[in-house]
Amino acid sequence: MSSLSSAAFIHSPMSTAEVEASEKLYGSLAGDVRRLIDVLIRTEVGADRVAQARELVQQAQMLLGEQASAEAAGVKFNDEGRSWSWGNAAVGARNAIAPPMVLRWDDDGEVRSEVDLGVAYEGPPGCVHGGVSALMLDHLMGETASAAHTRLTMTGTLTLRYIAPLPLGRIWLRARIERESDRKVTVVASIGPGEPSSDSSIEARGLFIVPRWAQSGDVPADIGSLD
Amino acid sequence: MSSLSSAAFIHSPMSTAEVEASEKLYGSLAGDVRRLIDVLIRTEVGADRVAQARELVQQAQMLLGEQASAEAAGVKFNDEGRSWSWGNAAVGARNAIAPPMVLRWDDDGEVRSEVDLGVAYEGPPGCVHGGVSALMLDHLMGETASAAHTRLTMTGTLTLRYIAPLPLGRIWLRARIERESDRKVTVVASIGPGEPSSDSSIEARGLFIVPRWAQSGDVPADIGSLD
Repeated sequence: MSSLSSAAFIHSPMSTAEVEASEKLYGSLAGDVRRLIDVLIRTEVGADRVAQARELVQQAQMLLGEQASAEAAGVKFNDEGRSWSWGNAAVGARNAIAPPMVLRWDDDGEVRSEVDLGVAYEGPPGCVHGGVSALMLDHLMGETASAAHTRLTMTGTLTLRYIAPLPLGRIWLRARIERESDRKVTVVASIGPGEPSSDSSIEARGLFIVPRWAQSGDVPADIGSLD
Repeated sequence: MSSLSSAAFIHSPMSTAEVEASEKLYGSLAGDVRRLIDVLIRTEVGADRVAQARELVQQAQMLLGEQASAEAAGVKFNDEGRSWSWGNAAVGARNAIAPPMVLRWDDDGEVRSEVDLGVAYEGPPGCVHGGVSALMLDHLMGETASAAHTRLTMTGTLTLRYIAPLPLGRIWLRARIERESDRKVTVVASIGPGEPSSDSSIEARGLFIVPRWAQSGDVPADIGSLD
């Protein structure tokens, strides 16, 4: 855990309303890019059309590059208790790579998500890449370990048991804290196809750690998981 | 392993030369889209520029959609022993989500890769998402288990031990077969920052299985890993 500390989290003067307006603006473009990624895998058009598409994409890239940070988005927080990580590979609002994964904290203590995974998440033919499932489970489990963002955690160990292939399309995920003591939190989770009543395709167990430097109070606990 | 069988692998009449020309054509566009994803996370332009970029991206998407399959790319193979999975989330040539991960089978039996990971692969501030590392390790280890594509394997279990945060930028990965018997192959792997001489950030161990249906000879073994 050497290269991270509370200094890596940036306090921002943005209000929560401004953050949400910004997420809506850039998030709509991220949605467009997500659809572009999808059709680029499926397209059968010829070289002339590909050249035209390249031209358009390069123009868009130049427009956005007119004014841009050189840095990764990082994790920011404001005085209202809102935190955001726009570049996060699992949930970042500006990240077209991230599956549109939205988490729900339910009353029974479980954290759940339903996601539609398109052709860009493929591994075995017609199925979700085992590593994409690992990415989504790792993220969900880290958020679960953070206990609805009341503490900051990092992944210690993660074990995944692959039971059956997971077809592309609608999938569900669920996670819950199995036990916790001191700075260690054990989370169990699963993922499966279609509706949440279906059998699990993958089962996971993870040990999450609260870093010592995160206990200092310098970083607001509501940042949650560091994945 | 219920929903996969040898029928999921599609024999293609394309020659290897045609496959490579196609990868070059669409791969160049995937590279452009990858740069677009990156700048979309970093941009600070206002609403007018975002609207213009959306227009361009939507036009590109429509051009590519003029003629497109409705299906995922799947895994295809030809009579020359070449196989390809253009939509693969870790290595697909047409998949702008995939880190540009290229594997190298070395003489000492290790499989290695060096990858430059930009801001779209972020988890903790300035660091690679733990789930992205899991995705890359899972893929590398599956390919390693396939023993340079002489057999077909699927992930059984995967255990990841997170030792230290992995900064964005240049990273290395390595994997090797630890032991094997009958239809089970154990692979160990690691990932770390900068040059391959640096300490590991994550260590992994995986059990990979050769599915019974893959022993029939219906599917060419050179398809390799099913991840």
